[in-house]
Amino acid sequence: MIYFTSDYTTGAHPEILKRFLETNLSPASGYGEDIFSKSAEEKIRHACSCPCAQVYFATGGTQTNRLVISSMLKSYEGVVAAETGHINAHEAGAVENSGHKVMTVPQHMGKIDSCELEAFVKTFYGDDNHEHMVFPGMVYISHPTEYGSIYSKKELENIRKVCKKYKMTLFLDGARLGYALCAKESDLDLETIAKLTDVFYIGGTKVGALCGEAIVFTKNNMPEHFTAVAKQMGALVAKGRLNGLQFETLFTNGLYYENGRHAIEKKDRLVKILKEAGFEFFYESPTNQQFVIIDNEKLKKLSEYVDTAFWEKYDDDHTVVRFATSWSTSDEDLDELERVLKEVF
Amino acid sequence: MIYFTSDYTTGAHPEILKRFLETNLSPASGYGEDIFSKSAEEKIRHACSCPCAQVYFATGGTQTNRLVISSMLKSYEGVVAAETGHINAHEAGAVENSGHKVMTVPQHMGKIDSCELEAFVKTFYGDDNHEHMVFPGMVYISHPTEYGSIYSKKELENIRKVCKKYKMTLFLDGARLGYALCAKESDLDLETIAKLTDVFYIGGTKVGALCGEAIVFTKNNMPEHFTAVAKQMGALVAKGRLNGLQFETLFTNGLYYENGRHAIEKKDRLVKILKEAGFEFFYESPTNQQFVIIDNEKLKKLSEYVDTAFWEKYDDDHTVVRFATSWSTSDEDLDELERVLKEVF
Amino acid sequence: MIYFTSDYTTGAHPEILKRFLETNLSPASGYGEDIFSKSAEEKIRHACSCPCAQVYFATGGTQTNRLVISSMLKSYEGVVAAETGHINAHEAGAVENSGHKVMTVPQHMGKIDSCELEAFVKTFYGDDNHEHMVFPGMVYISHPTEYGSIYSKKELENIRKVCKKYKMTLFLDGARLGYALCAKESDLDLETIAKLTDVFYIGGTKVGALCGEAIVFTKNNMPEHFTAVAKQMGALVAKGRLNGLQFETLFTNGLYYENGRHAIEKKDRLVKILKEAGFEFFYESPTNQQFVIIDNEKLKKLSEYVDTAFWEKYDDDHTVVRFATSWSTSDEDLDELERVLKEVF
Amino acid sequence: MIYFTSDYTTGAHPEILKRFLETNLSPASGYGEDIFSKSAEEKIRHACSCPCAQVYFATGGTQTNRLVISSMLKSYEGVVAAETGHINAHEAGAVENSGHKVMTVPQHMGKIDSCELEAFVKTFYGDDNHEHMVFPGMVYISHPTEYGSIYSKKELENIRKVCKKYKMTLFLDGARLGYALCAKESDLDLETIAKLTDVFYIGGTKVGALCGEAIVFTKNNMPEHFTAVAKQMGALVAKGRLNGLQFETLFTNGLYYENGRHAIEKKDRLVKILKEAGFEFFYESPTNQQFVIIDNEKLKKLSEYVDTAFWEKYDDDHTVVRFATSWSTSDEDLDELERVLKEVF
Repeated sequence: MIYFTSDYTTGAHPEILKRFLETNLSPASGYGEDIFSKSAEEKIRHACSCPCAQVYFATGGTQTNRLVISSMLKSYEGVVAAETGHINAHEAGAVENSGHKVMTVPQHMGKIDSCELEAFVKTFYGDDNHEHMVFPGMVYISHPTEYGSIYSKKELENIRKVCKKYKMTLFLDGARLGYALCAKESDLDLETIAKLTDVFYIGGTKVGALCGEAIVFTKNNMPEHFTAVAKQMGALVAKGRLNGLQFETLFTNGLYYENGRHAIEKKDRLVKILKEAGFEFFYESPTNQQFVIIDNEKLKKLSEYVDTAFWEKYDDDHTVVRFATSWSTSDEDLDELERVLKEVF
Repeated sequence: MIYFTSDYTTGAHPEILKRFLETNLSPASGYGEDIFSKSAEEKIRHACSCPCAQVYFATGGTQTNRLVISSMLKSYEGVVAAETGHINAHEAGAVENSGHKVMTVPQHMGKIDSCELEAFVKTFYGDDNHEHMVFPGMVYISHPTEYGSIYSKKELENIRKVCKKYKMTLFLDGARLGYALCAKESDLDLETIAKLTDVFYIGGTKVGALCGEAIVFTKNNMPEHFTAVAKQMGALVAKGRLNGLQFETLFTNGLYYENGRHAIEKKDRLVKILKEAGFEFFYESPTNQQFVIIDNEKLKKLSEYVDTAFWEKYDDDHTVVRFATSWSTSDEDLDELERVLKEVF
Repeated sequence: MIYFTSDYTTGAHPEILKRFLETNLSPASGYGEDIFSKSAEEKIRHACSCPCAQVYFATGGTQTNRLVISSMLKSYEGVVAAETGHINAHEAGAVENSGHKVMTVPQHMGKIDSCELEAFVKTFYGDDNHEHMVFPGMVYISHPTEYGSIYSKKELENIRKVCKKYKMTLFLDGARLGYALCAKESDLDLETIAKLTDVFYIGGTKVGALCGEAIVFTKNNMPEHFTAVAKQMGALVAKGRLNGLQFETLFTNGLYYENGRHAIEKKDRLVKILKEAGFEFFYESPTNQQFVIIDNEKLKKLSEYVDTAFWEKYDDDHTVVRFATSWSTSDEDLDELERVLKEVF
Repeated sequence: MIYFTSDYTTGAHPEILKRFLETNLSPASGYGEDIFSKSAEEKIRHACSCPCAQVYFATGGTQTNRLVISSMLKSYEGVVAAETGHINAHEAGAVENSGHKVMTVPQHMGKIDSCELEAFVKTFYGDDNHEHMVFPGMVYISHPTEYGSIYSKKELENIRKVCKKYKMTLFLDGARLGYALCAKESDLDLETIAKLTDVFYIGGTKVGALCGEAIVFTKNNMPEHFTAVAKQMGALVAKGRLNGLQFETLFTNGLYYENGRHAIEKKDRLVKILKEAGFEFFYESPTNQQFVIIDNEKLKKLSEYVDTAFWEKYDDDHTVVRFATSWSTSDEDLDELERVLKEVF
């Protein structure tokens, strides 16, 4: 079986494991006060060219989203997201469980449009009864999105403008940020993202770490007593070194980018193989996730050899499935995929 | 100024005030254990031909919706409503504040369609990742809806079928139930509603009481220790007689229906007057709320004489406004409206 | 049966019902924007000599406590109360349900001591791990307390000092405030309470209204978008006139004080009657609630004639019960009590 | 500097890191469906002699406590704990943040007493107003406790009896369970704990893992759709292998017990060293945490050489500090401590 199921099927980049071994018995403070975390924070500030950024390490995307959103919103505020946004569709209602509404705007291959966003917010403020409605307090976007699409600098600037005009916080979910940063079509780097957002996170779990997401508060806007807030939610680990050391490693010698580039290179070959095999693309994304429309019968057969992820039903006879590459995708995997597609289909 | 703003601009039906006076100094137990509440519960069970119904009196529609929904859902479940459903659009996020997602299906003049509902639920269960999604645990409808429309018996039966098939609770918000029960187009009575829903409420505030909504659990399904649950939310009043006595009065000698019929009669005349004055209807509802499209300039002028409610922007030059009758609308109000429309426009 | 069970067994002061009758058909805006509420707010500001006070009318003590506490605390903060404080002991966990811890200090007949309060807070800040603990963000006191005791001006000033020093909000629950204001031993008036607290409420339900509590934010510190916040919790009534008109009446011609004085006078006679009948006092309070220790056998017999409230078990053979007078206690009630105690015991 | 600060200052047992290396590139399913987690679950069931146990891996003690407590309680229920219980004192209000009250009973070196527990619950049910109070729905104990003390089998049986009688769930927090299981004074093994509790957890973070706690539902009582419930709270990691593999390793060849025994052996020597140096014990526990009373001046000096944890203020001149051993405490650490204490003091 070959796995193109997701970017979290394997463990961690070997360099990370090596560092675990090297540092294993060095005593370190708990709860994020350890030297590895402190060093990782510094390296991330540097990578973002944002010397005053405040960094916090959480474990997992949903935990991170819930923590950031619920700690930054006022109780009467909700968060605006694309209909397909992860927080709206695939986090089991975590944001609502924390007390806040997810309000939706249309999605375009996972992205939101600044004009539609503005129209939505204007309608809210234009309604005489808006004190009986949920205030739009934050805009959530992901980059890359659920569909692997990415925002251009211009698009992000436009969204930022709307946020500024209506005093909404802009939060960018970067669960797979490494793959967006290394996409050839991308004109957004960490520095620009730090400038244009109020808070974002750099995903580790899906870009080569065993776990860990680095939340970056870019405007000196980390909520007060954030440690206590995170603790309340169960988002503070005793061995802060677990997340800290992984991010320290990822942000040393450009490993985070290396992981990103690797996945993008393999994705290019993946796309080529899929096209040669005659697959129809639902969306050919610039990042590591590729969506193809596949006949249900064919999918059944394919599943005997290749593991992919169900995405959505296309019609009664077809399904959209996702192929994902990652920092650990190997040429052997791709060779094997090529062989299977050629021989079996 | 004449008021057609809403059905909660005046006080209570005089019979209610009379009963307050008569019983004022009779001592009664607190927290809903008083004889007035007990008698009201019995009368409501009788009116619903549902001898085992459990009745609880809350104060206000949003309080009631939040209480019912949050106490009946499991933590991983959400409630399905029309996009325009009150809980989705105009309760400031009360349901989400209690931890649950409101999931939406399309609306048709405020109503949901059983086929679209089923399609929505099927998509959920058809998704391999549905453990990462919010489970549809309840369906919320209002009758009449936000637009004054009403469900037919057939439509309600169909919704019930979908609920049963997918084990969802069916909750009917009857904030204005009296006006639906008395609509000429209606083939749904209290008994049928009690049979077809799991829980519903009979609105008092908008149908002649100062406050109060009677929640009816129709299937012996009142959540355990409901008094404690309501208390936690601040939905238990010390002087239970306040709600109890009002409902006892409303369900004595058919006063609740009398209030309903009165509003419907006045609505008929209202519609006639509006039509004669050349108003274009956005929706001519069978109940006490009527929606007309009005030129913004004309609205400005009208507002000097008549108070109506802003509903939504129609286009840049037009607005949808609501005219509402109620149990207290008088012929003098309508005479005056007729005069104003004739003389001023 | 004679009722000394509580101060919420009867309806409303007749003047309130009279005003309901007089104003019943006057149209008024919804959601607290009506003229009665506006006038009541103004009268309360005047009564407190606090022209900038912001007033909000809620329905019921638990609702009010939950609303005030949850809207004023940050998520990482809890509220400090006496062990016997209503929010800690008798609100079914409403404050915790809103996400906040109730932290306790010892009680002295229901009151807290400023030194013990300071010791508690100092211990918190003296603990190196306090980021893993709940921050004391507010102090809750009731006046009168659960035991009918009252704070002196000096005591309240001392509590205020501690609050100020440690940046805690001071909230006074005045569910029975009228009875404290009229206690002969009291040196605290509304003006002083408004000065010394950050927020307090004037209880209506237990001092002659059918329902209603007036929250007074004394330092221009009403949380932003408080209407939306209250709506979320189900604490916004459509017919704001219900609460507004009652408070307007209570604060016209000193009716609130008249109600208070009446109960205190009747309490004096009650105490005399109980003493003459040989009852042992658990606590003889300066306000309308009196606590006596009674032999269980005797209590059984007494219960055939007089309704009182169980307070707590004293020992295996004795019980503490509460006798309460109110604005509506009559001399006939007391005559009858005197007769029963003389003839039966 | 020598570290006796806590049992989470170092990384993971080398065997765990070895296994990470060995399995790093093997593809595995996400979200706890991987083969490592499945194998770990099976090994834990075996170790507990509880073939029907349901196991879930979470990350961190507070996350685990919050998840278990909030998912097993009904909304009107609270959890009973010792005053010093971790959930009451040192989790920043996580349980309350999830909506539930922590109710306290007295502590005896961290333990609760079954008679005092029963008295507490009886008082609740004996109170006529208990529908206005928080229902005791669960009992939380930790083993070892905050003070390192352990329950005997008899004590646990007695607590279980009270729980059964009053229908309360019994939850045992085993953040440091390994150290209790290996204490010489212990007569409780995993099998007995599984029998006597409804749910407990086996702590990994503090017993040799980088992170991870294994929740064991012993009575086929895992809440429905627990994956979704955990996801909502941010307690579901994408790479389930992270926790799964660590527990698989800890429960292979008795590594978990080996870690426990190691710490207990080193604790024996620690106690001997501390006693020889004339330290006064606040509590000499049978497990890896030791509490000594130390003069503040002496503590200042000690802190230059040895890192310990502040526990609590003893009096104005003395402090209680904790020395902890762990699976990684070495004889070199202890030699050095012995030297420092001899030479410096």
